[in-house]
Amino acid sequence: MPMSVRKFSIPEILFGRGSMQYVGTCARRLGAEKVFFVSDPGLKKAGWVDKVFELLETEKLSWVYYSNVVANPRDHQVQEGAQLYLDEGCDVVVSLGGGSPMDAAKGIALVASNGGKVHQYEGANRIHRPLPPMVFIPSTAGSGSDVSQFAIINDVQRRVKMSIISRTLVPNISIIDPNILTTKTKSLIIAAAIDAIAHAAESYVSKIASPFTEVHSLKSIDIIIKVLPAALETRGIDALEQLSVASTSAGMAFSNASLGIDHALAHSLGGMLDVVHGLIHPVLLPHVLRFNLPACPDKVADIGEIVLGKRYSSDEKTALAGIEKLEEFSHQLNVSTRLRDIITDRASLPQVCRMAVNDSCLLTNPRPATWEEMLQICEDAW
Amino acid sequence: MPMSVRKFSIPEILFGRGSMQYVGTCARRLGAEKVFFVSDPGLKKAGWVDKVFELLETEKLSWVYYSNVVANPRDHQVQEGAQLYLDEGCDVVVSLGGGSPMDAAKGIALVASNGGKVHQYEGANRIHRPLPPMVFIPSTAGSGSDVSQFAIINDVQRRVKMSIISRTLVPNISIIDPNILTTKTKSLIIAAAIDAIAHAAESYVSKIASPFTEVHSLKSIDIIIKVLPAALETRGIDALEQLSVASTSAGMAFSNASLGIDHALAHSLGGMLDVVHGLIHPVLLPHVLRFNLPACPDKVADIGEIVLGKRYSSDEKTALAGIEKLEEFSHQLNVSTRLRDIITDRASLPQVCRMAVNDSCLLTNPRPATWEEMLQICEDAW
Repeated sequence: MPMSVRKFSIPEILFGRGSMQYVGTCARRLGAEKVFFVSDPGLKKAGWVDKVFELLETEKLSWVYYSNVVANPRDHQVQEGAQLYLDEGCDVVVSLGGGSPMDAAKGIALVASNGGKVHQYEGANRIHRPLPPMVFIPSTAGSGSDVSQFAIINDVQRRVKMSIISRTLVPNISIIDPNILTTKTKSLIIAAAIDAIAHAAESYVSKIASPFTEVHSLKSIDIIIKVLPAALETRGIDALEQLSVASTSAGMAFSNASLGIDHALAHSLGGMLDVVHGLIHPVLLPHVLRFNLPACPDKVADIGEIVLGKRYSSDEKTALAGIEKLEEFSHQLNVSTRLRDIITDRASLPQVCRMAVNDSCLLTNPRPATWEEMLQICEDAW
Repeated sequence: MPMSVRKFSIPEILFGRGSMQYVGTCARRLGAEKVFFVSDPGLKKAGWVDKVFELLETEKLSWVYYSNVVANPRDHQVQEGAQLYLDEGCDVVVSLGGGSPMDAAKGIALVASNGGKVHQYEGANRIHRPLPPMVFIPSTAGSGSDVSQFAIINDVQRRVKMSIISRTLVPNISIIDPNILTTKTKSLIIAAAIDAIAHAAESYVSKIASPFTEVHSLKSIDIIIKVLPAALETRGIDALEQLSVASTSAGMAFSNASLGIDHALAHSLGGMLDVVHGLIHPVLLPHVLRFNLPACPDKVADIGEIVLGKRYSSDEKTALAGIEKLEEFSHQLNVSTRLRDIITDRASLPQVCRMAVNDSCLLTNPRPATWEEMLQICEDAW
């Protein structure tokens, strides 16, 4: 089958230790006078938020700080932030955080410029007016929100995590400073790295993967498998920097190739049951890969080859051995690999799956899936 | 040594067979009313220029067509084009071509918006005002100008190819349509592919390479070595498409990691003696890699491993065997590998090298070089 037309779009990237120092000049270059700055209390405590205040002030920028953001960020937090952005007459959005503050910041930029409620932009390509310039500094090596065209916002009333996907959600500049990872807990590093593996694996088998995304997907998995154990043990900056490379690579890949069943279910579980996003993938991803195997045995085998460091004569054998190795990897990290360990409400699974079939991520999964098939995946993972 | 801060910036990319059809909508999206369209007589003859006219008209865009461009495009062609752009009140630049029309188009966009003479922007980061939006369609798989922050313009009086390097020279959108390659001659496909290999190899060993450029450099070499012979023999679209992927990957790499001695000399030879750019690399690159070897044996060995499909116990051995294999590859393509075959004026070499030491590309070469050392490289290649 000929490859049809593919898009590849990423922000301008500043990468490296100490690169955070450029946040003020970057915002200034994008026309900032008054910055709307989104982060969270944990990063305030660790001193990084104050550091950004300083850097903005050095550039003689004024700012408004917004930190009413939680994991799985809420629609009402976005609306409140957007109102504050408008009331204060801000002109550029800066965010420092993991996926939650960054996605909230995107939602705020969206509503402030396009009006209405964040809900009306759910799905792909629903944003028609330009957003204010955005400069993002990821504080974890996982979400990829700083390079992606995705924002995931929790619709509290419907208990759904909405996927909002648009090229206009790609920040203008992503400043990736691995120094920030030195203040992260072990469990947060693991959850983020596992999210990156899931981004890489799902984007690699996506129906709209391209040579430009595939190379990043495989590179990302390769790095994480090799470096994560050392990063956790030594907390050395070299290893942490590699995790940042891997997360960014996976972000470039999934932003442009999108995702699949694992993320469709993760969004649904996050929306209905408020499960922490990074914990879901070790549970679901292996089962999703097994489900997808018949649709793309060569590609699941490519992932297997990266994980195993070798390839068997049949794609299926390589793929299955690779999936097992991924499961082992999770065990070694001491993360739960059974769904029953992270949710208690088994009875809600049919509803979770009925929601998940409507998630935009399902559109690019290499094998179509009904909600019953997704339920079977959840049951297998129970 | 810790990796210091690195930038990575590329245009939005549309890739695939038939992607050219989006040129009008892309220009429109960037605010076009009247397009300044730069291409060349060869592409007019092949029918591609008329195709672009049609596509612009479908979007109800008016246009001015400028085709006074030659290989190693001249400063006066840029000035003339910029005047025409201003006289006609254009607002977006579209270019279809190999490196020459695309670099000329960048020069035109630069002078039309920043004023003065193109010469005053020679070097890195000398452009201070924004350029008009640019949509580029590469017609060869080699130059990478459609994704890069480089424009190379010939200063006729000084007989120097000026390297102009600025993030603002990255086009907004690159539309890469491998169908265009089907009308190219064998020798042009070779010259372009070899240019891409040189971009990939020089960017890989560059002092400012990053994990984001390195992955593209190696991927590019890998593809070209594997696919070029088949592409030349069958002219099949699958193989040509792979060459487009390789060229784009190499473009992303060198745009952000820059180049080295081979390109510094190639610019000087092109400026003084008007040598066709693509012919220079098979002659010089192996000698440049041997010269650079002591500075980065591991990296030259990585290139060797890609070319050879294996690695020996010592980096040096792998590197040298890889360089030899690259030379063999050139022989098989029947391209000249001796400098005497492409220039006659040996006496001008000292002057060529004295010019080349001032080329910006030299700044990122992994091993410093005097003009005498560069002359020795040329003599070795004679």
